[in-house]
Amino acid sequence: MLDDTTGDIAGSPTASRARTVLIDCDPGHDDAIALLLAHGSPAIDLVGVSTVAGNQTLAKITRNAQSIAAAGGFSHVPIAAGATRGLVTAPFVAADIHGESGLDGPHLPEPVAPLDPRHGVQLIIDTVMTRPAGTVTIIATGPLTNLALAARLEPRIVERVREVVFMGGAIQGGNLTPTAEFNIAVDPEAAHVVVHENWEVTMIGLDVTHLALATTQVRGHLDAVGTTPARIVGEMLDFYGAAYVTSQGFACPPVHDPVAVAAIIDASVLEFRRAPIDVSLAEGPTRGMTVVDLRKPAPESCRTRVAVGLDTHRFWALVVDALTRIGEPLAVG
Amino acid sequence: MLDDTTGDIAGSPTASRARTVLIDCDPGHDDAIALLLAHGSPAIDLVGVSTVAGNQTLAKITRNAQSIAAAGGFSHVPIAAGATRGLVTAPFVAADIHGESGLDGPHLPEPVAPLDPRHGVQLIIDTVMTRPAGTVTIIATGPLTNLALAARLEPRIVERVREVVFMGGAIQGGNLTPTAEFNIAVDPEAAHVVVHENWEVTMIGLDVTHLALATTQVRGHLDAVGTTPARIVGEMLDFYGAAYVTSQGFACPPVHDPVAVAAIIDASVLEFRRAPIDVSLAEGPTRGMTVVDLRKPAPESCRTRVAVGLDTHRFWALVVDALTRIGEPLAVG
Amino acid sequence: MLDDTTGDIAGSPTASRARTVLIDCDPGHDDAIALLLAHGSPAIDLVGVSTVAGNQTLAKITRNAQSIAAAGGFSHVPIAAGATRGLVTAPFVAADIHGESGLDGPHLPEPVAPLDPRHGVQLIIDTVMTRPAGTVTIIATGPLTNLALAARLEPRIVERVREVVFMGGAIQGGNLTPTAEFNIAVDPEAAHVVVHENWEVTMIGLDVTHLALATTQVRGHLDAVGTTPARIVGEMLDFYGAAYVTSQGFACPPVHDPVAVAAIIDASVLEFRRAPIDVSLAEGPTRGMTVVDLRKPAPESCRTRVAVGLDTHRFWALVVDALTRIGEPLAVG
Amino acid sequence: MLDDTTGDIAGSPTASRARTVLIDCDPGHDDAIALLLAHGSPAIDLVGVSTVAGNQTLAKITRNAQSIAAAGGFSHVPIAAGATRGLVTAPFVAADIHGESGLDGPHLPEPVAPLDPRHGVQLIIDTVMTRPAGTVTIIATGPLTNLALAARLEPRIVERVREVVFMGGAIQGGNLTPTAEFNIAVDPEAAHVVVHENWEVTMIGLDVTHLALATTQVRGHLDAVGTTPARIVGEMLDFYGAAYVTSQGFACPPVHDPVAVAAIIDASVLEFRRAPIDVSLAEGPTRGMTVVDLRKPAPESCRTRVAVGLDTHRFWALVVDALTRIGEPLAVG
Repeated sequence: MLDDTTGDIAGSPTASRARTVLIDCDPGHDDAIALLLAHGSPAIDLVGVSTVAGNQTLAKITRNAQSIAAAGGFSHVPIAAGATRGLVTAPFVAADIHGESGLDGPHLPEPVAPLDPRHGVQLIIDTVMTRPAGTVTIIATGPLTNLALAARLEPRIVERVREVVFMGGAIQGGNLTPTAEFNIAVDPEAAHVVVHENWEVTMIGLDVTHLALATTQVRGHLDAVGTTPARIVGEMLDFYGAAYVTSQGFACPPVHDPVAVAAIIDASVLEFRRAPIDVSLAEGPTRGMTVVDLRKPAPESCRTRVAVGLDTHRFWALVVDALTRIGEPLAVG
Repeated sequence: MLDDTTGDIAGSPTASRARTVLIDCDPGHDDAIALLLAHGSPAIDLVGVSTVAGNQTLAKITRNAQSIAAAGGFSHVPIAAGATRGLVTAPFVAADIHGESGLDGPHLPEPVAPLDPRHGVQLIIDTVMTRPAGTVTIIATGPLTNLALAARLEPRIVERVREVVFMGGAIQGGNLTPTAEFNIAVDPEAAHVVVHENWEVTMIGLDVTHLALATTQVRGHLDAVGTTPARIVGEMLDFYGAAYVTSQGFACPPVHDPVAVAAIIDASVLEFRRAPIDVSLAEGPTRGMTVVDLRKPAPESCRTRVAVGLDTHRFWALVVDALTRIGEPLAVG
Repeated sequence: MLDDTTGDIAGSPTASRARTVLIDCDPGHDDAIALLLAHGSPAIDLVGVSTVAGNQTLAKITRNAQSIAAAGGFSHVPIAAGATRGLVTAPFVAADIHGESGLDGPHLPEPVAPLDPRHGVQLIIDTVMTRPAGTVTIIATGPLTNLALAARLEPRIVERVREVVFMGGAIQGGNLTPTAEFNIAVDPEAAHVVVHENWEVTMIGLDVTHLALATTQVRGHLDAVGTTPARIVGEMLDFYGAAYVTSQGFACPPVHDPVAVAAIIDASVLEFRRAPIDVSLAEGPTRGMTVVDLRKPAPESCRTRVAVGLDTHRFWALVVDALTRIGEPLAVG
Repeated sequence: MLDDTTGDIAGSPTASRARTVLIDCDPGHDDAIALLLAHGSPAIDLVGVSTVAGNQTLAKITRNAQSIAAAGGFSHVPIAAGATRGLVTAPFVAADIHGESGLDGPHLPEPVAPLDPRHGVQLIIDTVMTRPAGTVTIIATGPLTNLALAARLEPRIVERVREVVFMGGAIQGGNLTPTAEFNIAVDPEAAHVVVHENWEVTMIGLDVTHLALATTQVRGHLDAVGTTPARIVGEMLDFYGAAYVTSQGFACPPVHDPVAVAAIIDASVLEFRRAPIDVSLAEGPTRGMTVVDLRKPAPESCRTRVAVGLDTHRFWALVVDALTRIGEPLAVG
């Protein structure tokens, strides 16, 4: 199913129209599934992966990204290590959810390709500056440190990026604090930079990702794929699901990050509303909160929108389809 | 229908079990309806009204309270003027919603009773301290300045009050700002005091009051009452509804404050969830926001709860019933 | 030396021009000396004492005020207990400096007069409203809670007060935190109210009170007075001085609060500069800081000034003089 | 006086012990003098200049740096353009002090060397990473954006840098606001990063730079040098001095930035005190304030110090000496 040489998904009818995507991530269980979803989808041409400290330390999550690339068969995609911590907030990780490795649970293969020697921020800048303006989409599934650093180091990327989709924040409520979602809480200043820059930004917040639950039925569909990557996803969900039960009282785990990828594969699985987004930076109970102003229709100049609804059935179908297309890349390697 | 001497609603079968209530308010159209609802309900024994600057200046809204008392036949209830402004925030009023008088629209009668000579804060303190502990309920429908001042001047009221119900805040979103509801935004520090004191507090926020819409059908029921007070309510809703259309884009106006009264008359018209409440005091986009932590079940020690659902049909039935019971007090005066 | 009946200082040549003063305080060693200085000075007519939680709990410091009144012979002055805590900040006391009683060290007499039954805030309001406008000066040597509550409960006091002098804050540096002085840190919101109200305000900050050191030479002068009140002052300075050595590394203790009284007795012992004052309320390293803008000459409308210099020799002479005039009130009682 | 080929100051007896210095700056009149002081001093080996938006836009101040290099004869030193704006705060410039060009007043020569193609942040990283650990000193005379970005992109520079000296902040008072100095106010988050990283940091604040006044006597000494660079300095001070008179009421202008260079040339011209430094990030009256805790001796682990005194006579002698050594580089070019 995969072209041995390039790792591209063969025979994709929409490949010519596939979206050029760089994923900035901190795998992390749901990041790992997001990477597999992007790689397996014919609607996405994954051209780069930058990593950022978040769910675990940079070294750990970067190695996880390489292992997932090996498992999923996209080791040809450059992976570059980015920021080791947020801009201002003292470093912290989500070991309660993702374990000591950042991706506890499955047995993962060794990386098969070296890291890209560039800094993750430089990979973002190069990817955007060397391709035609308006073609590169950035999907961010970790803290937004790398994107903020890239925008400050090379401001011209802002007008060249096609759009930025990030998993993070919420219209209402948080998970790390009553008001702050983890990715934003780890680096509120970076999130502030990203939502206030003049590019198209889509926020995929807890409001919709808490609907993307890996239910028993979903697990059944995933297990039915029957491949090694699908098995790894299942093992990840075993660990991650148990962690969510213990840590946040969920019956089955919300799989946040792939929803941001789904928004690019098929925007119609989500419902969006255009609205101004701000990020609260003040010390106190709202630090790291995304402030979404839904009181009125957004002004014409508004370049930010938030996801407000998710078709969970079709969302999971995209994940199953991607895993099916990926097949057994290790067997063919 | 009313006892001429006392103004009490005659023949109320539940009068012996009526709740002793003081209302702290800033009338204001919806405050006015809240007062009429409280007075007209056999489940409430309205024993005092304190006023606070909010929707308009203290002088204006205090006179409005007196006029509504005259119109509704409860001029025997002491009305005392309270705080002229919030603790820290610079004064401002809601003239866009309530007009220059704070109660634009209807022709209101002149007050028929003088103000209580006490300060509104002293009326609160006296009402609580001179009645048995655990008997007085305070319903606040304006900024929480008077309650905060009372708690700081006479801390013993905190353990003597039966409960505090306030209209204000929201679980999600604001009206004055993207995150702050008007009553909290006018005096965030006072709200901080009230939600952190060790009394039972119920927050009736925009989440439910935006469901209490005076629809055409509701207006029909209100108009059918056919009394002078009901006519005044109708005229108030004409002005107030038009203001909401212009100012906030509502098709028909949310009638916030009576929902807090309804919570005492018949708690079953609302659904509640126990949760910690905080108030954001920081300068920036979240000043005046109520922070409700719904992530987990509230701890045992939690003494705050928030309304999360409203049976609008039964709510409006309470209002119509109260107006019907009030009848024509001016005619009998 | 004292009139037995009234406790007034006999034969004061300037009594007819004495300033009418209410002291709001939390004794506290330096507050106690401030009270004695005010009582003993012919330039001041001490007409009321309100107390406020600060250096210790309200009950303790109120009793201390009564004991000092007994020791100093001014039990005829009404003493009323005020606020038990600050407006927003959680309560805390300065036991490291003032000990468990708030006035550890000396053996103090029992109170000889009952407390005024009014609330301290009401005493402030009554004192200002029942005397001619422009005659009452308020000296505050504790947290500014009572003053803020009084201004919010009875706004008319603001234009009637002659001036407010408070010990608190600093142009540079704090003692409780790097930026916040204790009195302001205990209740920053109250301080914000006081400095922004439209009355004449003088800030006596650490910049000058850290010059008012009870040196060995000063102790010699105080001891030479030889009266019981002077002996009590000496014993207070023994405890308080040791506490300052241990807690803040001072060789001899700064005696803050009497400097605010000295500013009224003889303003020429201090140097002042007119400047806008603000109070930082934000969470973080500057909460409770007084922000004094010294960059340019103050605008004409500016009603606040800060002390920038102190003639320590003449300051201590005022204290010695006051103690000398007080003599032995207990002996004559 | 200069070696034509390398531009090095010839015959410097201490060249072997000269400190390796990179200057991060936003010229700016006082930055320009700082660059000349560094270049002309035998105690400093200026190996790089990175620029940052601050006194004016990046394009303007970068060209100013190149022109000053041409005028001063150090065009062989790499100059690289850095950040175009601060991390979070909206961009603003100091046109009131430095004029439209950022260096209004003198006629400046055209640049004689092209910009280094690297980003200013990359120049900082390369300079530190390619030289022996512990050898490179960074002097920052503009907003600290580049340093913060460098520390976040390449954290290993922190332990390799010998020390960081920055002009900015104050122990007491600001110039842009009552509490914030311009360089910190432009990018408080960057300053927060720099003072909290684990490198040796010296703050040269307004407390000492407001002593470095270009008095008439100083101007006499500078004019007596008689070279083209000295004449340019004089013309700069004419414009800059007039701006300070108008904008901040100074009789003669404080020449801030060279004081940071003097701290490296001869630390004994300054007095320092080791103390923790924080930066206030909160919205409100203290945003951008440097919080220096001088209450107690600094803990052993403290790696920050602040300048508390300046020998102005010796400071200006360093400037005159450097200009004398520079001589007439353009004539020899």
